[in-house]
Amino acid sequence: MLEKVDLKKKIGKVEYKEMIDGLREQLGELQRQARDLGIPVLILFEGWDAAGKGTLINELILSLDPRGFNVYSIGEPNEEAMMRPYFWRFWNKTPQCGRIVILDRSWYSKILADRVGQGATAHDVQEAFHDSLSFERQLSDDGTLIIKLFLHISEREQRKRLEKLEQDPATAWRVTEADWEHHRQYNKSLLAIEEIMQQTDAECAAWTIIEAHDRRYATLKIIATVIEAMEKRLAVAAAAANVKKDKSTDKHLPASGLSKIFTSSILAGIDLTKSLKDTEYENSMKFYQTRVRELEHIIYSKRIPVIIVFEGWDAAGKGGAIRRLTQDMDPRGYTVIPICAPTAEEKAHHYLWRFWRNVPKAGHIAIFDRSWYGRVLVERVEGFCRENEWRRAYKEINEMEEQWANFGAVLVKFWLHIDKDEQKRRFEERLANPGKQWKITGEDWRNREQWELYENAVDEMFFRTSTTYAPWTLVEANSKEYARKKVIQSVIEAIEDKI
Amino acid sequence: MLEKVDLKKKIGKVEYKEMIDGLREQLGELQRQARDLGIPVLILFEGWDAAGKGTLINELILSLDPRGFNVYSIGEPNEEAMMRPYFWRFWNKTPQCGRIVILDRSWYSKILADRVGQGATAHDVQEAFHDSLSFERQLSDDGTLIIKLFLHISEREQRKRLEKLEQDPATAWRVTEADWEHHRQYNKSLLAIEEIMQQTDAECAAWTIIEAHDRRYATLKIIATVIEAMEKRLAVAAAAANVKKDKSTDKHLPASGLSKIFTSSILAGIDLTKSLKDTEYENSMKFYQTRVRELEHIIYSKRIPVIIVFEGWDAAGKGGAIRRLTQDMDPRGYTVIPICAPTAEEKAHHYLWRFWRNVPKAGHIAIFDRSWYGRVLVERVEGFCRENEWRRAYKEINEMEEQWANFGAVLVKFWLHIDKDEQKRRFEERLANPGKQWKITGEDWRNREQWELYENAVDEMFFRTSTTYAPWTLVEANSKEYARKKVIQSVIEAIEDKI
Repeated sequence: MLEKVDLKKKIGKVEYKEMIDGLREQLGELQRQARDLGIPVLILFEGWDAAGKGTLINELILSLDPRGFNVYSIGEPNEEAMMRPYFWRFWNKTPQCGRIVILDRSWYSKILADRVGQGATAHDVQEAFHDSLSFERQLSDDGTLIIKLFLHISEREQRKRLEKLEQDPATAWRVTEADWEHHRQYNKSLLAIEEIMQQTDAECAAWTIIEAHDRRYATLKIIATVIEAMEKRLAVAAAAANVKKDKSTDKHLPASGLSKIFTSSILAGIDLTKSLKDTEYENSMKFYQTRVRELEHIIYSKRIPVIIVFEGWDAAGKGGAIRRLTQDMDPRGYTVIPICAPTAEEKAHHYLWRFWRNVPKAGHIAIFDRSWYGRVLVERVEGFCRENEWRRAYKEINEMEEQWANFGAVLVKFWLHIDKDEQKRRFEERLANPGKQWKITGEDWRNREQWELYENAVDEMFFRTSTTYAPWTLVEANSKEYARKKVIQSVIEAIEDKI
Repeated sequence: MLEKVDLKKKIGKVEYKEMIDGLREQLGELQRQARDLGIPVLILFEGWDAAGKGTLINELILSLDPRGFNVYSIGEPNEEAMMRPYFWRFWNKTPQCGRIVILDRSWYSKILADRVGQGATAHDVQEAFHDSLSFERQLSDDGTLIIKLFLHISEREQRKRLEKLEQDPATAWRVTEADWEHHRQYNKSLLAIEEIMQQTDAECAAWTIIEAHDRRYATLKIIATVIEAMEKRLAVAAAAANVKKDKSTDKHLPASGLSKIFTSSILAGIDLTKSLKDTEYENSMKFYQTRVRELEHIIYSKRIPVIIVFEGWDAAGKGGAIRRLTQDMDPRGYTVIPICAPTAEEKAHHYLWRFWRNVPKAGHIAIFDRSWYGRVLVERVEGFCRENEWRRAYKEINEMEEQWANFGAVLVKFWLHIDKDEQKRRFEERLANPGKQWKITGEDWRNREQWELYENAVDEMFFRTSTTYAPWTLVEANSKEYARKKVIQSVIEAIEDKI
């Protein structure tokens, strides 16, 4: 999903000025509170070469009391470190109670280098993930707040920056042949970075992507991210210590008020103008529907289970897409499973229980019309579950899908995307059509009011659950024909890849 | 450590009768409370063939309201299950809120069979551990109480039981060639079982060994284990729900009162009569001390770090053993690190921080006089840390030692064991000797009063932290000469194994 992140975000000078001072003051206060409550904070900067780590770390520490933090730059291990187990030097740098440690690169840089350089076996890499996670979990269990930032720039931006550095005699020395070599491996690294983030994105130590093309935007997002994490951690500590929270922070804009600026990277980048000519649609669909039927028989004989998930906005056309997909299929080979609110029995079990029960037999196809992702969408936005529940759901879902994929299943997950205007048009059309009025309820209008909250939830879902074994497919669905064709094509491709 | 478990434990008929009714009543009440609070409970029976799983499950359910539980027997997967991801049938059997599910065998049986049968690669086995842990963690996070029991019998006992079953025409059919084949692989299975337990012993789903030679003993220990776990879980639930605990259980003997009967399996089995003749001691020590010095040079040139841990009772002779071990060593190659109460700076960090800082350089030897195990010994017994802290310490310690071992370190961990009388004798001897009086303080006498609590803590430490990469060595130390020789011999063997 990293390649889909919208990197064009900018903040104007005026807007920046309006916000930055208040945020800096707020962060300074949070630092004092963390000191008083004895909370250690570890902030880790990873990112592409030339993404501006040094500059942005400077922007961050401008807000902080210099007596309360340390910045460490993590390069190649020196001889002392080479003589000891890998995490020795990181243990030595862990913050003590009440202090902040900022790391310029971390244990992840070596994992990335090993991964891209191919010096490491799959087993080495698994071990590295395991050690990283256990290190972070141990610190977090002990009370340390861990914030992991990844500064993201595009390949083109990286090249531009490296060239600019080279042209200036004062900075040319900073660009080495190794930097260019890394640059040439940008795309390979992108995949490795995605894998690292997926594998090490823990509830106690989640990754945040910082779009780093624009320095003002990146600065604000970094400070807001740190503020949000510290506020959350301090609330927990204050509750535990039975201390009333210092009222003085309340005069500030809550960091969550900024969240609108800092999210929806992926949805915002989807091009909804895509469409199809009628004749093209008719002809291609016939062809694809026949092919799907053939594939249905092949996977049956090869005993491959297929799991297809449909998520998307209300009225995005999930039902129609499913109908077109299954139109020519053999009904003995697939099941459509509509997911609504859980029954009493389902509520009395783990929320994944009902999906496990519906996992298709080898050779069969299960089509979920909405799915387990409800946990991190409607249940999150509407408050039907607690925050810790939807937060840990990302990992639970990834684990479930990984087990299914390891069993040999093909997983295809669709997000059908339309914009707010298109949704309104479709709602009104349904209301005007007596045969479709039943499809639209008060709830649909209410959900619509939460559009931005859903956008944020969808974006986070993409980021945390688009895995190598179960990637999301984003479907531009303002044109129903385009969407239906893309859905059926994607299913065909996913199955053909497997067989 | 499984082979060291004392399997001779018995409970007499009279004693059994005195206890069983009260325990059954107590368990019945806990079941009702768990139902009212909506807590799901999953109890899993694993163990050797012929260990008596069926019988003991029957004993357990005698205490339970039959409307509130299900027993499932887990055999080979049927065709329906084979067509789905492995955990599908276990998800289908998870208990709903307020119900108890008892499993006769579980997901672990397949892991064991794969491990012993060599059909699985290291990667498969790692994946199986990972999937098991994530399944259990997901359920536990959702509120399910998980109790994992392993019914342990010796190879000899197993043979006796299989023969007895075969001789009786009514039961002969129950013994198959496969059972005898398993029996022949007893020792291989023992290692695999130990590995499985180490890898899957989680805070949220810990293993308990049930010594199953004596049916009465096993019955009581199972019921007491379930009672203890349910009481703990109910206390958490009651606190969360802000409900006052039902007083009616308070009339019962607390399960912790039974813990004396059910622990100290390993320490109890140590033969403390072992000793050495003086001349034998003098001659062999000279030889070993020279060899240790040679090895010190070899590990230096090979850059192998060596970590030696000394734990044991007060006055068990740790200091003397360390002196004899290091007597002829090159002082530039080793450091002795005495561990006392943490400093203020150490307290401001994770408790493992100070040990990570002291990890030896490659090629050097670090000898810890007391160690990170203080967390699960003195800190546990004296209440210097919270229960969740020492409970999660087992895993933290294993992870740390595993990282060191993967780096190439040799780890040797000694528990110097003496009995209570011998300790008293040594204390009095020290008091009588003006040169040694400083060695003995009021704290030593106070610790002595907690002897049984320490025994339990030591036993649990052995069980949870004796790993393939860092096993414990138990040293019979009533005879100082014997202990010193065993220590130096063990160090030599461990290093020789590595080089």
